[in-house]
Amino acid sequence: MTWMRRTPKENPHLNFMKLAVAEASAGVRKGHGGPFGAVIVRKGKIIARAHNEVVSTFDPTAHAEVMAIRKASGKLKTFDLSGCELYTTCEPCPMCLAAILWARIPRVYYGCTRRDADAIGFRDDLFYAKTRIRLGAGTVRLVPLGRRECLRVFREWANKKDRVVY
Amino acid sequence: MTWMRRTPKENPHLNFMKLAVAEASAGVRKGHGGPFGAVIVRKGKIIARAHNEVVSTFDPTAHAEVMAIRKASGKLKTFDLSGCELYTTCEPCPMCLAAILWARIPRVYYGCTRRDADAIGFRDDLFYAKTRIRLGAGTVRLVPLGRRECLRVFREWANKKDRVVY
Repeated sequence: MTWMRRTPKENPHLNFMKLAVAEASAGVRKGHGGPFGAVIVRKGKIIARAHNEVVSTFDPTAHAEVMAIRKASGKLKTFDLSGCELYTTCEPCPMCLAAILWARIPRVYYGCTRRDADAIGFRDDLFYAKTRIRLGAGTVRLVPLGRRECLRVFREWANKKDRVVY
Repeated sequence: MTWMRRTPKENPHLNFMKLAVAEASAGVRKGHGGPFGAVIVRKGKIIARAHNEVVSTFDPTAHAEVMAIRKASGKLKTFDLSGCELYTTCEPCPMCLAAILWARIPRVYYGCTRRDADAIGFRDDLFYAKTRIRLGAGTVRLVPLGRRECLRVFREWANKKDRVVY
Protein backbone atom coordinates (compact mmCIF):
# COMPACT_ATOMS: atom_id res chain seq x y z
CA MET A 1 0.00 0.00 0.00
CA THR A 2 3.06 2.22 -0.26
CA TRP A 3 1.58 4.08 -3.21
CA MET A 4 -1.15 5.41 -0.93
CA ARG A 5 1.25 7.04 1.51
CA ARG A 6 1.59 10.79 1.36
CA THR A 7 4.89 11.95 -0.04
CA PRO A 8 7.04 14.18 2.21
CA LYS A 9 6.15 17.14 0.00
CA GLU A 10 2.51 16.67 0.88
CA ASN A 11 3.21 16.29 4.56
CA PRO A 12 4.07 19.65 6.13
CA HIS A 13 4.46 18.00 9.53
CA LEU A 14 7.24 15.76 8.24
CA ASN A 15 8.89 18.75 6.58
CA PHE A 16 9.01 20.59 9.90
CA MET A 17 10.45 17.45 11.47
CA LYS A 18 13.13 17.38 8.80
CA LEU A 19 14.06 20.94 9.73
CA ALA A 20 14.39 19.79 13.33
CA VAL A 21 16.67 16.99 12.11
CA ALA A 22 18.77 19.53 10.16
CA GLU A 23 19.08 21.61 13.35
CA ALA A 24 20.14 18.55 15.34
CA SER A 25 22.69 17.67 12.69
CA ALA A 26 24.13 21.20 12.68
CA GLY A 27 24.47 21.03 16.47
CA VAL A 28 26.33 17.72 16.29
CA ARG A 29 28.72 19.03 13.63
CA LYS A 30 29.44 22.16 15.67
CA GLY A 31 29.96 20.12 18.83
CA HIS A 32 27.25 22.07 20.68
CA GLY A 33 25.70 19.04 22.38
CA GLY A 34 23.61 15.93 21.79
CA PRO A 35 21.82 15.09 18.50
CA PHE A 36 18.61 16.89 19.33
CA GLY A 37 16.77 19.57 17.37
CA ALA A 38 13.42 21.33 17.75
CA VAL A 39 11.22 23.62 15.70
CA ILE A 40 8.26 25.71 16.94
CA VAL A 41 5.54 26.52 14.44
CA ARG A 42 2.50 28.76 14.63
CA LYS A 43 -0.18 28.67 11.94
CA GLY A 44 2.19 26.91 9.54
CA LYS A 45 5.01 29.42 10.06
CA ILE A 46 8.31 28.72 11.77
CA ILE A 47 8.72 30.82 14.92
CA ALA A 48 11.91 29.27 16.29
CA ARG A 49 14.42 26.52 15.59
CA ALA A 50 17.07 25.36 17.99
CA HIS A 51 19.39 22.52 18.89
CA ASN A 52 20.88 21.12 22.06
CA GLU A 53 23.61 23.40 23.45
CA VAL A 54 24.44 21.70 26.75
CA VAL A 55 28.11 21.19 25.89
CA SER A 56 28.86 24.56 24.28
CA THR A 57 27.09 26.66 26.94
CA PHE A 58 27.71 24.31 29.96
CA ASP A 59 24.00 24.77 30.69
CA PRO A 60 22.38 21.41 31.61
CA THR A 61 18.95 22.91 30.80
CA ALA A 62 19.93 23.86 27.23
CA HIS A 63 17.97 21.03 25.62
CA ALA A 64 16.64 21.65 22.10
CA GLU A 65 13.02 21.99 23.24
CA VAL A 66 13.89 24.43 26.05
CA MET A 67 16.08 26.48 23.68
CA ALA A 68 13.27 26.60 21.11
CA ILE A 69 10.74 27.66 23.76
CA ARG A 70 13.08 30.42 24.96
CA LYS A 71 13.55 31.70 21.42
CA ALA A 72 9.86 31.50 20.50
CA SER A 73 8.64 33.20 23.67
CA GLY A 74 11.26 35.91 23.26
CA LYS A 75 10.25 36.48 19.66
CA LEU A 76 6.50 36.50 20.33
CA LYS A 77 7.03 38.41 23.60
CA THR A 78 4.78 36.09 25.56
CA PHE A 79 5.27 33.13 27.88
CA ASP A 80 2.04 31.66 26.50
CA LEU A 81 2.74 29.54 23.41
CA SER A 82 -0.70 27.90 23.34
CA GLY A 83 -1.09 28.78 19.64
CA CYS A 84 2.10 26.90 18.72
CA GLU A 85 3.15 23.34 17.96
CA LEU A 86 6.56 21.83 18.62
CA TYR A 87 8.53 19.38 16.49
CA THR A 88 11.37 17.59 18.21
CA THR A 89 13.72 14.88 17.00
CA CYS A 90 13.31 12.94 20.25
CA GLU A 91 10.58 12.26 22.80
CA PRO A 92 10.93 15.11 25.32
CA CYS A 93 12.65 14.34 28.63
CA PRO A 94 10.70 15.13 31.83
CA MET A 95 12.27 18.61 32.06
CA CYS A 96 11.30 19.50 28.50
CA LEU A 97 7.87 17.97 28.93
CA ALA A 98 7.20 20.15 31.97
CA ALA A 99 8.62 23.18 30.11
CA ILE A 100 6.15 22.42 27.30
CA LEU A 101 3.32 22.31 29.86
CA TRP A 102 4.38 25.66 31.37
CA ALA A 103 4.52 27.13 27.85
CA ARG A 104 1.04 25.68 27.20
CA ILE A 105 2.06 24.13 23.89
CA PRO A 106 -0.87 21.78 23.12
CA ARG A 107 0.74 19.40 20.65
CA VAL A 108 4.21 17.93 20.22
CA TYR A 109 5.50 15.83 17.32
CA TYR A 110 8.51 13.69 18.20
CA GLY A 111 10.79 11.40 16.17
CA CYS A 112 13.01 9.07 18.17
CA THR A 113 11.85 7.53 21.43
CA ARG A 114 13.38 7.72 24.90
CA ARG A 115 14.74 4.21 24.30
CA ASP A 116 16.48 5.33 21.12
CA ALA A 117 18.13 8.07 23.22
CA ASP A 118 19.10 5.51 25.84
CA ALA A 119 20.69 3.36 23.13
CA ILE A 120 23.14 6.14 22.23
CA GLY A 121 24.06 6.91 25.84
CA PHE A 122 21.55 9.52 27.08
CA ARG A 123 19.83 9.17 30.41
CA ASP A 124 16.28 9.94 29.32
CA ASP A 125 14.97 6.43 29.82
CA LEU A 126 16.56 6.19 33.26
CA PHE A 127 15.05 9.57 34.07
CA TYR A 128 11.61 8.40 33.15
CA ALA A 129 12.05 5.26 35.23
CA LYS A 130 13.17 7.33 38.21
CA THR A 131 10.67 10.12 37.98
CA ARG A 132 7.66 8.21 36.64
CA ILE A 133 6.23 11.16 34.80
CA ARG A 134 2.77 10.39 33.47
CA LEU A 135 0.69 12.89 31.56
CA GLY A 136 -2.90 13.33 32.55
CA ALA A 137 -5.82 14.43 30.40
CA GLY A 138 -5.88 18.02 29.22
CA THR A 139 -2.14 18.49 29.17
CA VAL A 140 -0.27 17.93 25.91
CA ARG A 141 -0.75 15.52 23.03
CA LEU A 142 2.41 13.67 21.97
CA VAL A 143 2.42 12.48 18.34
CA PRO A 144 5.15 10.14 16.98
CA LEU A 145 6.48 11.30 13.58
CA GLY A 146 9.51 10.69 11.34
CA ARG A 147 11.49 8.39 13.62
CA ARG A 148 13.42 7.02 10.64
CA GLU A 149 14.67 10.51 9.67
CA CYS A 150 15.55 11.31 13.26
CA LEU A 151 17.49 8.10 13.82
CA ARG A 152 19.91 9.23 11.11
CA VAL A 153 21.23 12.07 13.26
CA PHE A 154 21.39 9.74 16.27
CA ARG A 155 23.73 7.54 14.23
CA GLU A 156 25.71 10.63 13.19
CA TRP A 157 26.25 11.38 16.86
CA ALA A 158 27.07 7.78 17.78
CA ASN A 159 29.75 7.71 15.07
CA LYS A 160 31.28 11.03 16.11
CA LYS A 161 34.73 10.36 17.58
CA ASP A 162 34.99 13.54 19.69
CA ARG A 163 31.48 13.56 21.18
CA VAL A 164 31.09 14.79 24.75
CA VAL A 165 28.76 12.59 26.80
CA TYR A 166 26.78 14.38 29.51
CA MET B 1 12.40 24.13 74.38
CA THR B 2 12.94 27.26 72.29
CA TRP B 3 16.22 27.94 74.05
CA MET B 4 17.64 24.74 72.56
CA ARG B 5 16.95 25.72 68.96
CA ARG B 6 19.90 26.90 66.90
CA THR B 7 19.81 30.56 66.17
CA PRO B 8 19.82 31.63 62.50
CA LYS B 9 23.42 32.72 62.90
CA GLU B 10 24.35 29.18 63.79
CA ASN B 11 22.39 27.69 60.94
CA PRO B 12 24.16 28.33 57.62
CA HIS B 13 21.43 26.46 55.75
CA LEU B 14 18.77 28.85 56.99
CA ASN B 15 21.02 31.80 56.14
CA PHE B 16 21.30 30.58 52.53
CA MET B 17 17.53 30.16 52.47
CA LYS B 18 17.14 33.74 53.68
CA LEU B 19 19.29 34.88 50.75
CA ALA B 20 16.96 32.96 48.44
CA VAL B 21 14.04 34.79 50.09
CA ALA B 22 15.80 38.14 49.54
CA GLU B 23 16.26 37.22 45.85
CA ALA B 24 12.57 36.29 45.56
CA SER B 25 11.58 39.55 47.21
CA ALA B 26 13.80 41.59 44.86
CA GLY B 27 12.18 39.83 41.89
CA VAL B 28 8.69 40.65 43.12
CA ARG B 29 9.55 44.32 43.69
CA LYS B 30 11.07 44.59 40.21
CA GLY B 31 8.07 42.84 38.64
CA HIS B 32 10.28 40.14 37.11
CA GLY B 33 7.96 37.26 37.93
CA GLY B 34 6.60 35.11 40.74
CA PRO B 35 7.89 35.16 44.35
CA PHE B 36 10.56 32.54 43.85
CA GLY B 37 14.27 32.73 44.59
CA ALA B 38 17.13 30.23 44.53
CA VAL B 39 20.74 30.07 45.68
CA ILE B 40 23.38 27.52 44.65
CA VAL B 41 26.18 26.81 47.10
CA ARG B 42 29.38 24.78 46.83
CA LYS B 43 31.49 24.00 49.91
CA GLY B 44 29.77 26.76 51.86
CA LYS B 45 30.32 29.40 49.18
CA ILE B 46 27.61 31.01 47.05
CA ILE B 47 28.05 30.19 43.37
CA ALA B 48 24.83 31.69 42.02
CA ARG B 49 21.66 33.44 43.14
CA ALA B 50 18.64 34.05 40.97
CA HIS B 51 14.94 34.77 40.96
CA ASN B 52 12.01 33.99 38.71
CA GLU B 53 12.10 36.04 35.50
CA VAL B 54 9.20 34.56 33.55
CA VAL B 55 7.38 37.88 33.23
CA SER B 56 10.34 40.14 32.44
CA THR B 57 11.94 37.80 29.87
CA PHE B 58 8.71 36.16 28.56
CA ASP B 59 10.55 32.87 29.02
CA PRO B 60 8.25 30.25 30.62
CA THR B 61 11.35 28.25 31.65
CA ALA B 62 12.91 31.16 33.59
CA HIS B 63 12.07 29.72 37.00
CA ALA B 64 14.41 30.63 39.87
CA GLU B 65 15.98 27.17 40.06
CA VAL B 66 16.60 26.99 36.29
CA MET B 67 18.06 30.53 36.29
CA ALA B 68 20.35 29.63 39.20
CA ILE B 69 21.49 26.42 37.47
CA ARG B 70 22.22 28.37 34.26
CA LYS B 71 24.26 30.93 36.19
CA ALA B 72 26.15 28.36 38.28
CA SER B 73 27.02 26.10 35.33
CA GLY B 74 28.15 29.13 33.31
CA LYS B 75 30.30 30.33 36.19
CA LEU B 76 31.85 26.93 36.94
CA LYS B 77 32.03 26.10 33.21
CA THR B 78 30.51 22.67 33.68
CA PHE B 79 27.07 21.13 33.27
CA ASP B 80 27.85 18.86 36.23
CA LEU B 81 26.85 20.53 39.50
CA SER B 82 27.16 17.37 41.61
CA GLY B 83 29.32 19.22 44.15
CA CYS B 84 26.62 21.85 44.76
CA GLU B 85 23.49 22.24 46.86
CA LEU B 86 20.45 24.30 45.96
CA TYR B 87 18.25 26.43 48.24
CA THR B 88 14.87 27.41 46.85
CA THR B 89 12.00 29.29 48.41
CA CYS B 90 9.48 26.79 47.04
CA GLU B 91 9.33 23.06 46.36
CA PRO B 92 10.62 22.71 42.78
CA CYS B 93 8.06 22.17 40.02
CA PRO B 94 8.52 19.08 37.79
CA MET B 95 10.52 21.09 35.23
CA CYS B 96 12.94 22.40 37.86
CA LEU B 97 13.14 19.00 39.52
CA ALA B 98 14.18 17.38 36.24
CA ALA B 99 16.63 20.25 35.61
CA ILE B 100 18.12 19.53 39.04
CA LEU B 101 18.47 15.86 38.08
CA TRP B 102 20.20 16.74 34.79
CA ALA B 103 22.54 19.07 36.70
CA ARG B 104 23.20 16.21 39.17
CA ILE B 105 22.60 18.40 42.21
CA PRO B 106 22.32 15.87 45.05
CA ARG B 107 20.47 17.92 47.68
CA VAL B 108 17.81 20.60 47.58
CA TYR B 109 16.50 22.67 50.50
CA TYR B 110 13.05 24.12 49.90
CA GLY B 111 10.83 26.49 51.89
CA CYS B 112 7.20 26.69 50.78
CA THR B 113 5.36 23.67 49.47
CA ARG B 114 3.59 23.13 46.14
CA ARG B 115 0.32 23.69 47.99
CA ASP B 116 1.52 27.05 49.29
CA ALA B 117 2.26 27.97 45.65
CA ASP B 118 -1.17 26.75 44.62
CA ALA B 119 -2.74 28.95 47.31
CA ILE B 120 -1.31 32.10 45.71
CA GLY B 121 -2.35 31.14 42.18
CA PHE B 122 0.51 29.08 40.70
CA ARG B 123 -0.12 25.83 38.88
CA ASP B 124 2.56 23.70 40.53
CA ASP B 125 0.15 21.54 42.45
CA LEU B 126 -2.00 20.96 39.37
CA PHE B 127 1.19 20.10 37.47
CA TYR B 128 2.15 17.52 40.01
CA ALA B 129 -1.33 16.02 39.89
CA LYS B 130 -1.21 15.87 36.10
CA THR B 131 2.31 14.62 35.67
CA ARG B 132 2.61 12.42 38.76
CA ILE B 133 6.32 12.92 39.12
CA ARG B 134 7.77 10.64 41.75
CA LEU B 135 11.43 10.54 42.64
CA GLY B 136 13.13 7.19 42.90
CA ALA B 137 16.12 6.23 44.99
CA GLY B 138 19.49 7.67 44.05
CA THR B 139 18.15 10.85 42.54
CA VAL B 140 17.95 13.95 44.70
CA ARG B 141 17.18 14.49 48.37
CA LEU B 142 14.58 17.17 49.08
CA VAL B 143 14.85 18.80 52.51
CA PRO B 144 12.15 21.18 53.88
CA LEU B 145 13.65 24.33 55.45
CA GLY B 146 12.51 27.82 56.46
CA ARG B 147 8.93 27.68 55.21
CA ARG B 148 7.95 30.50 57.59
CA GLU B 149 10.54 32.85 56.07
CA CYS B 150 9.53 31.88 52.55
CA LEU B 151 5.81 32.39 53.17
CA ARG B 152 6.55 36.07 53.82
CA VAL B 153 7.50 36.71 50.22
CA PHE B 154 4.49 34.69 49.05
CA ARG B 155 2.32 37.13 50.98
CA GLU B 156 4.27 40.05 49.49
CA TRP B 157 3.38 38.72 46.03
CA ALA B 158 -0.27 38.03 46.95
CA ASN B 159 -0.64 41.62 48.17
CA LYS B 160 0.98 43.13 45.08
CA LYS B 161 -1.64 45.00 43.09
CA ASP B 162 0.09 44.88 39.68
CA ARG B 163 1.21 41.26 39.74
CA VAL B 164 1.18 39.35 36.44
CA VAL B 165 -0.23 35.83 36.82
CA TYR B 166 1.22 33.21 34.47
